[in-house]
Amino acid sequence: MKKIGILVSALIALLLGGCSQSSKTSTSSSPSKSSSSYQITAKSNNSQYQTVINNGSYLTSKSRGVGISQNSDNLLNLKSFESGLLQLSKSKFSTSDYIFREGQILSKATVENWLGRQSKSNSSGLNPENNGQTDPNKRNPIYVQQLEEQDYMKQKNGKLTLSGMTIGIGMNHKDYYQKEQYGATYSTTISKAKMIEEGRLAAAKVLQRVRKKVGNNVPILIAMFEQAPNDSLVGGSFYSYAYVKSGSTISTWNDINLKSYIMPATSTNSVPNDNDETSFESFKKQVQNFFPNLAGVTAQAEYDNKQLQGLHVNITTQFYSETEIISFTQYLAQAARNYLPSGIPIDITVKGSDGTVQSFLAKTAKQTNYYTHVFSSY
Amino acid sequence: MKKIGILVSALIALLLGGCSQSSKTSTSSSPSKSSSSYQITAKSNNSQYQTVINNGSYLTSKSRGVGISQNSDNLLNLKSFESGLLQLSKSKFSTSDYIFREGQILSKATVENWLGRQSKSNSSGLNPENNGQTDPNKRNPIYVQQLEEQDYMKQKNGKLTLSGMTIGIGMNHKDYYQKEQYGATYSTTISKAKMIEEGRLAAAKVLQRVRKKVGNNVPILIAMFEQAPNDSLVGGSFYSYAYVKSGSTISTWNDINLKSYIMPATSTNSVPNDNDETSFESFKKQVQNFFPNLAGVTAQAEYDNKQLQGLHVNITTQFYSETEIISFTQYLAQAARNYLPSGIPIDITVKGSDGTVQSFLAKTAKQTNYYTHVFSSY
Repeated sequence: MKKIGILVSALIALLLGGCSQSSKTSTSSSPSKSSSSYQITAKSNNSQYQTVINNGSYLTSKSRGVGISQNSDNLLNLKSFESGLLQLSKSKFSTSDYIFREGQILSKATVENWLGRQSKSNSSGLNPENNGQTDPNKRNPIYVQQLEEQDYMKQKNGKLTLSGMTIGIGMNHKDYYQKEQYGATYSTTISKAKMIEEGRLAAAKVLQRVRKKVGNNVPILIAMFEQAPNDSLVGGSFYSYAYVKSGSTISTWNDINLKSYIMPATSTNSVPNDNDETSFESFKKQVQNFFPNLAGVTAQAEYDNKQLQGLHVNITTQFYSETEIISFTQYLAQAARNYLPSGIPIDITVKGSDGTVQSFLAKTAKQTNYYTHVFSSY
Repeated sequence: MKKIGILVSALIALLLGGCSQSSKTSTSSSPSKSSSSYQITAKSNNSQYQTVINNGSYLTSKSRGVGISQNSDNLLNLKSFESGLLQLSKSKFSTSDYIFREGQILSKATVENWLGRQSKSNSSGLNPENNGQTDPNKRNPIYVQQLEEQDYMKQKNGKLTLSGMTIGIGMNHKDYYQKEQYGATYSTTISKAKMIEEGRLAAAKVLQRVRKKVGNNVPILIAMFEQAPNDSLVGGSFYSYAYVKSGSTISTWNDINLKSYIMPATSTNSVPNDNDETSFESFKKQVQNFFPNLAGVTAQAEYDNKQLQGLHVNITTQFYSETEIISFTQYLAQAARNYLPSGIPIDITVKGSDGTVQSFLAKTAKQTNYYTHVFSSY
């Protein structure tokens, strides 16, 4: 937290305000590798990438919106997919060396074709052809559900050069389908082994196709994601990645053991570490005792194997006055400090019974005290 | 911002966790002036009061919820009333010397009776009797719309003693009524002069009645609030106050010139200072240029005469990915720093088109850089 506010530097003066004066104009023989008139955002935080502004506007992804149409039944999958992808990228393309650019290599049509089935009109489809069957176990399921490109740029001689790339591929463990339009929804369950196998085949094809567009020497991180079922309360999770420095062969797949859980645990969904669950229950109890209107207290927990990585806590209760919200928020800052696990990033969002956000607390992994904010009104 | 996190002290260890060990038990002949088994919350922030915990639970107001039923048509009035009342109290009862307690002297029934009309069954009503008329100009309007008590305590010899009190009284400039149940809504407009006059009469009665309950020597701040009309986009505002150190006579009324405005300004609602409006418009333009989906940018502005006191900025736009939200938030931190007025507290809330909060930025009056937070999901 302290770093925010310190790191915003002279860059700001350069990059905003008189943007046209400080823009760096460049031309390039390969428009896919650089942009012609760009600025980058100021650094606001060491843990976040600077991003690309093109002619005063944010450079959005060429395949913008494809993920949403592919994930309309469980938008948590999209959220998990994107935040996880960004997190993984940071381990290979550091935020201090690279500038983030929304995917500019793969167009919307390209991604949509790749995510489609093989057919006469779509030879690039990564999913098998429709075999005409409607039985869950006889039909060819959709294995590859979503795909996202992220570009990592370096600034050289006033030009932004593509210097890294991340491709996330979302795989179905369950594929949902209708036998007839507007009909009931059925599902084909895909075994984990089959999902992993199909994912590797798809990744190999994607890598070869992308290499044709960006050349052999851009490092490419390919990350495989398992979509959560539609009724899941958490999004899916990444299960493996391959980092291909050059060339179009994937030699090594590495396991990823990040997984999301919901607290409090239920019989069908227990968290990997009982101590964390105990801490959370103590916190929950303190919070619920404090306030006469029963507060709903839940959390999203992220684990790497058995190691808790972070918590998003959600609290819902009914308030009767602003002073109640302020006092409750102060109390939460104490209770969270005393009862929730230390050494991980935690944020707490407090909502009223009508769903509007009333206050918010957050700490980074290193901090012990919470930043607090109460949303007020004049 | 930096102060948060530094000020949470050893108090926490004392006050939480093993609460029963550290609770200070006291008995008192006058239960209205002290509580018998209480703790206070830890100090989280120099600008906010510590508050009272009673037997492990928050001590809510005895007249809890009365404000909401009185303000069901414009909850902005309630928000403005409460945050303003707290703000005014801070000028008389400093956050470092006093502990805030929700009103414990006036019961819900008492406040409801006072806010009612004079009648055979309610001699304590502050509003005139129903004269049977339904014509807007012939009926007796409801002048006094809401009333709230706040207690300011000091800790002495292990006891919490009532050492200050604030009474907020909300007055109608427009009184809404129905001629028949579930019928159309009509309104009686009350002149400012009449509103002020009736407010002073009510305040005098309230002071005398409260003195009977708390004695002659507790300093009492009485603050008069003008309710905004039901169709207003901002809440009402305080227009005067009296500070009565002892006794039951109000000798001096002081003007308050705090008022809320909406930006961008409209023909019927312009802000007192054109420069602020220009700054806001520049900020708005930068923000709207940055993002392909037109962003809605509005703000609540608080003025003391012509002097801007603070801004709550609201931005709504449609996002297609988490990276867009992160980049937009970074950009906002720059744009706000460059274009919005300096030296005042500002917060910015970013919402998606479905109304959920996506990110949030805030600075205090002294800070130049913004704290930023993007709401994420695992």
